[in-house]
Amino acid sequence: MDERIPVAVLGATGSVGQRFVQLLARHPWFRPAELVASDRSAGKRYGDATDWRLDAFLPEDAADLTVRGYDAALDSPVVFSALPAEVAGEIEQRLAREGHAVVTNTRTHRMEPDIPLLIPEVNAEHLAAIETQRRNRGWSGFIATNPNCSTIHMVLALKPLQAAFGLEAVAVTTMQAVSGAGYPGVPSLDMIDNVVPYIGEEEEKIESETKKLLGGFDGDSFHPAELVVSAQCNRVPVRDGHTECVSARLGSSPSPEEVVEVFDAFRGRPQELGLPSAPPKPVVVRREANRPQPALDRDTANGMASIVGRVRPCPLLGTKFVVLGHNTVRGAAGASILNAELFKEEGLLPL
Amino acid sequence: MDERIPVAVLGATGSVGQRFVQLLARHPWFRPAELVASDRSAGKRYGDATDWRLDAFLPEDAADLTVRGYDAALDSPVVFSALPAEVAGEIEQRLAREGHAVVTNTRTHRMEPDIPLLIPEVNAEHLAAIETQRRNRGWSGFIATNPNCSTIHMVLALKPLQAAFGLEAVAVTTMQAVSGAGYPGVPSLDMIDNVVPYIGEEEEKIESETKKLLGGFDGDSFHPAELVVSAQCNRVPVRDGHTECVSARLGSSPSPEEVVEVFDAFRGRPQELGLPSAPPKPVVVRREANRPQPALDRDTANGMASIVGRVRPCPLLGTKFVVLGHNTVRGAAGASILNAELFKEEGLLPL
Amino acid sequence: MDERIPVAVLGATGSVGQRFVQLLARHPWFRPAELVASDRSAGKRYGDATDWRLDAFLPEDAADLTVRGYDAALDSPVVFSALPAEVAGEIEQRLAREGHAVVTNTRTHRMEPDIPLLIPEVNAEHLAAIETQRRNRGWSGFIATNPNCSTIHMVLALKPLQAAFGLEAVAVTTMQAVSGAGYPGVPSLDMIDNVVPYIGEEEEKIESETKKLLGGFDGDSFHPAELVVSAQCNRVPVRDGHTECVSARLGSSPSPEEVVEVFDAFRGRPQELGLPSAPPKPVVVRREANRPQPALDRDTANGMASIVGRVRPCPLLGTKFVVLGHNTVRGAAGASILNAELFKEEGLLPL
Amino acid sequence: MDERIPVAVLGATGSVGQRFVQLLARHPWFRPAELVASDRSAGKRYGDATDWRLDAFLPEDAADLTVRGYDAALDSPVVFSALPAEVAGEIEQRLAREGHAVVTNTRTHRMEPDIPLLIPEVNAEHLAAIETQRRNRGWSGFIATNPNCSTIHMVLALKPLQAAFGLEAVAVTTMQAVSGAGYPGVPSLDMIDNVVPYIGEEEEKIESETKKLLGGFDGDSFHPAELVVSAQCNRVPVRDGHTECVSARLGSSPSPEEVVEVFDAFRGRPQELGLPSAPPKPVVVRREANRPQPALDRDTANGMASIVGRVRPCPLLGTKFVVLGHNTVRGAAGASILNAELFKEEGLLPL
Repeated sequence: MDERIPVAVLGATGSVGQRFVQLLARHPWFRPAELVASDRSAGKRYGDATDWRLDAFLPEDAADLTVRGYDAALDSPVVFSALPAEVAGEIEQRLAREGHAVVTNTRTHRMEPDIPLLIPEVNAEHLAAIETQRRNRGWSGFIATNPNCSTIHMVLALKPLQAAFGLEAVAVTTMQAVSGAGYPGVPSLDMIDNVVPYIGEEEEKIESETKKLLGGFDGDSFHPAELVVSAQCNRVPVRDGHTECVSARLGSSPSPEEVVEVFDAFRGRPQELGLPSAPPKPVVVRREANRPQPALDRDTANGMASIVGRVRPCPLLGTKFVVLGHNTVRGAAGASILNAELFKEEGLLPL
Repeated sequence: MDERIPVAVLGATGSVGQRFVQLLARHPWFRPAELVASDRSAGKRYGDATDWRLDAFLPEDAADLTVRGYDAALDSPVVFSALPAEVAGEIEQRLAREGHAVVTNTRTHRMEPDIPLLIPEVNAEHLAAIETQRRNRGWSGFIATNPNCSTIHMVLALKPLQAAFGLEAVAVTTMQAVSGAGYPGVPSLDMIDNVVPYIGEEEEKIESETKKLLGGFDGDSFHPAELVVSAQCNRVPVRDGHTECVSARLGSSPSPEEVVEVFDAFRGRPQELGLPSAPPKPVVVRREANRPQPALDRDTANGMASIVGRVRPCPLLGTKFVVLGHNTVRGAAGASILNAELFKEEGLLPL
Repeated sequence: MDERIPVAVLGATGSVGQRFVQLLARHPWFRPAELVASDRSAGKRYGDATDWRLDAFLPEDAADLTVRGYDAALDSPVVFSALPAEVAGEIEQRLAREGHAVVTNTRTHRMEPDIPLLIPEVNAEHLAAIETQRRNRGWSGFIATNPNCSTIHMVLALKPLQAAFGLEAVAVTTMQAVSGAGYPGVPSLDMIDNVVPYIGEEEEKIESETKKLLGGFDGDSFHPAELVVSAQCNRVPVRDGHTECVSARLGSSPSPEEVVEVFDAFRGRPQELGLPSAPPKPVVVRREANRPQPALDRDTANGMASIVGRVRPCPLLGTKFVVLGHNTVRGAAGASILNAELFKEEGLLPL
Repeated sequence: MDERIPVAVLGATGSVGQRFVQLLARHPWFRPAELVASDRSAGKRYGDATDWRLDAFLPEDAADLTVRGYDAALDSPVVFSALPAEVAGEIEQRLAREGHAVVTNTRTHRMEPDIPLLIPEVNAEHLAAIETQRRNRGWSGFIATNPNCSTIHMVLALKPLQAAFGLEAVAVTTMQAVSGAGYPGVPSLDMIDNVVPYIGEEEEKIESETKKLLGGFDGDSFHPAELVVSAQCNRVPVRDGHTECVSARLGSSPSPEEVVEVFDAFRGRPQELGLPSAPPKPVVVRREANRPQPALDRDTANGMASIVGRVRPCPLLGTKFVVLGHNTVRGAAGASILNAELFKEEGLLPL
């Protein structure tokens, strides 16, 4: 018998939802038990309701589940959410009120003052906000969020630098994969022989989420890091994997070799706890002149690591480097799953 | 009879060389009369020696010319050079010594202390260095260079800002088209579903050339602008058109609207003189949220304009924007041709 | 004063509609006077209603026209249609009834027994069906259609072979550009690093339209050519230009050289009449081993020619070759415009 | 201790060579013990000599091996060859003479009258030619080849049809991935927004290899199948995975459903023997309207299966379908490895 913890996936037919189902199908602790989608799919077999686009074949157990509607009562203690932002607010709050641990990739609640925006290697101490959240809202469950797919990889790289040297300012230019926009998402006429130098609200998200992630929580509220962040976001013809050119002004002036050492030595709570989805090293350093590249490096550590390269001096801010990461694994579904693994080990799941 | 000035093209069978031939074939002042390439092609009909890759058919007059070798004596007063950097030094110097106006796109002589690095809208006054150069070297002809394909478009956008507001620092991240690497150039395995975050020596060129272009010439030597420049260069799956995300710290703090006005009002010496290849406006402003894009905008003003968009505040440096330009037209062959047009109008051609 | 014939464009904001507006803006005989689109755009300035995606800037005269709704009464004697197939039937019929010459790229009426499916070089004699159509339907105007974008280029190549040698069977495999599906059209996740071996109803259209085009009209009805056609259609990551691999069983067994001669000598009614959009040669032969290629050859003769190459023996059917053509110029808007030019010269426009 | 059979890889630094090293590193029976490459690499550590392009990191054991030159004496009983065709002839023959089982992906010996061209599911009985080969040539070892990457997938699909219905004629149009041309291989300027309708000698290989594979061996020589094959080959912007549109005239006229059943029921010698690299089903059927697609389906059965779809009637030849397969796994290195596994189980390895 399958003794894994039953979990639900909200928005299970979309791009990130499919990634949840794929990653959970072979997860050692969780099993996808309830799949939720909009009325268009509710009542159908998941295998029939879904235009599966990840692998040759979708996991068989999941294929046979009947899709449930947005207003279904759920039995699973843990609920992963990949809902469209327009509908996430109400549904996620109802489920938290009803006692579920809602672990969401959707942006809706990310910046709320009592909801943690979490990267386990970066700010595991923000878990304390869950207690505050429950008290504030009278919920038996809770909501926890993970950051935007571009933010998460940049912040994984910045965190050890902040810890070692201090961090004052960051400029980042992203080259983002099309899977970040879902399916159908970006039209092919926008991507063949082209770059689109604009992604709606993305720059704002990177600027605000980075400060919350790298800031503190005092038991009552979050204190954003004192940090200047400037982002320029571009869509490029890549399926998966966001590439980001980062310049940083650190508190001191380390050499590139010292920066590389700090990246390489970085470990966080998931590595200490040995969480099943944790990459051995959250930040993997490539030393070749022309890496990381999305086609070659995005699947490093099963897509759960951030890969850095080209660490070198910046004449303007001091240090520059390139960071790359898988945007629908560590940048979305995998991030939520790692969060849920942390909750389990910290005794926060309503089991 | 064709009364146009006969010109030679060095490196005529390569990517930039082909672009020279294409643009000159329909030029009102110049006609391609001598085509020069390596021994592999010398002696052949140009149409047979060249794997023409620009248009359906190469210009017929040019096709019938016999390709000449690197050591051929040339009759044309004006020589355009698209030579490989490894061989350009000696050949270009010999031709300048022999009295030719050598107008080169090759990087070899760009940073020499008595050779102008020229964008006619930006630093036409650097022409004065030609006199110094001849005196220093005892040449009857001269060498003049144009910048790297990424530098030229960024500097066209920065020049009016420098003039209006002062300019202190620039950070730029480029997304460069593959035609910039020539043919065969970048392998398709590096570009399908991929980004390569590295272009050899490109960042160094942008950093040094920008300072020379925006600096002064005192009759004796060049004085680089006092300016911090930091570049990060990437190759993306685009045929033609470099896209660049620029952040600038200006001397004062103009609003985006003021910056746009300055871009829009910018005119230079080529526009005053009405040079045939001059774009009506060197900097064209797009006001849509998601422009400029290479596939849609690179051919603006026949590829001779720099197109800017997304002008907005930068939390870090003050002003940010995107600039795009055609890398083998205004970024290479077209730049040299515009330089030669300026020389003609300024009476500098050895006719 | 602009003395050109005023024309209307139905579906003016879509991909093919934009191409109509672009080609008509500089047309010597016609001027876009009325632009029609769905309720979403009606009442707006065309420049505001349209996400222009063809050139840097849309033609200024057209930009200032006010978009009209589907049920507007039109003054233009000639109406070009790029309507969605779902709405084309009723609207096109009403306009024909009201006296307009409706020249449509939409598929709705292509296979009707009294409506010509026309390629002027191929079956100009099918114009006789217009008389029959008016008589049958009591219309003062008429409807004429052009074929699907894949069919048109293949048939332009097959027609001279049919005339010279007879034609018994054709097998074709297409590799079609994404612009054929409009905008947003094909998602980029389907096209980056991918081929989609299916285009809905495309194979059926090629098989049926080819027979009507290469068949006869007896004054009363069409007689499809006795011909076996088998098509396999694929979508590939190309912006514009359909590439088609054709094998044909001809009535006799010409050598490749004889086939090339026949392609090269082919001329039709548009070339005789010197119609303004007619390519000098409807079929252009490339002799290089690896041509035609969409990126290099689609704009041959301003996108109005079909380009053939690789003519060689087929061990199975006798003759094989590759044909390429621009799918939104000669394959869509340009095809309709050439049809209208023919109507004008044949005295069929209601002027 | 590693008890696996030591094997050598010739041409180990190239694209196919890297794939051999990758697949063998985790192979249950074989271990890469000797890596051979040209003088440029000989003497270096494999990890330093190789620009590894397959995964984030190359297998560590292999990385530490010292690359050997082309003329090295080898100890491994089994030698896999991915040599350039220009040098393969002499080297492979020398090694066979010296007693090695040379299992080669290179084309040089494919069509020789006493050397088997082998797909274990298709013509395992051709193994008998090894005996003849040794006798003819006086070798203690032998050479066995696998087909071209396009041929192999088409023939895997045709074999069960030939067995069930008879096979008379085949027309195929391929859309081939760039990895088939190695690295650097196809320039990106040929592949962005483009199709190249030509691959040197590919059509000839498909036509001749198919007949040898589907023909017989009588103990003395091969008898090519009596079969007409016509191929048209194209390069498309895909990293891995060849897509092929096939029409076949079978001996009888099965329905698409019968064809699908035959595909689905097909098993060969590798499946009987349970060879470690054998896919559970050599031919996997997709039933969706728009599959198989390279981005989604090439990794089916770890890249060792051929995936068919769109089985439907062909008005010209009777049956048509699409077949897709991974060109550097089952189409190259994986094919050789499966051949070697068969040799081992058949007692043909010189152990």
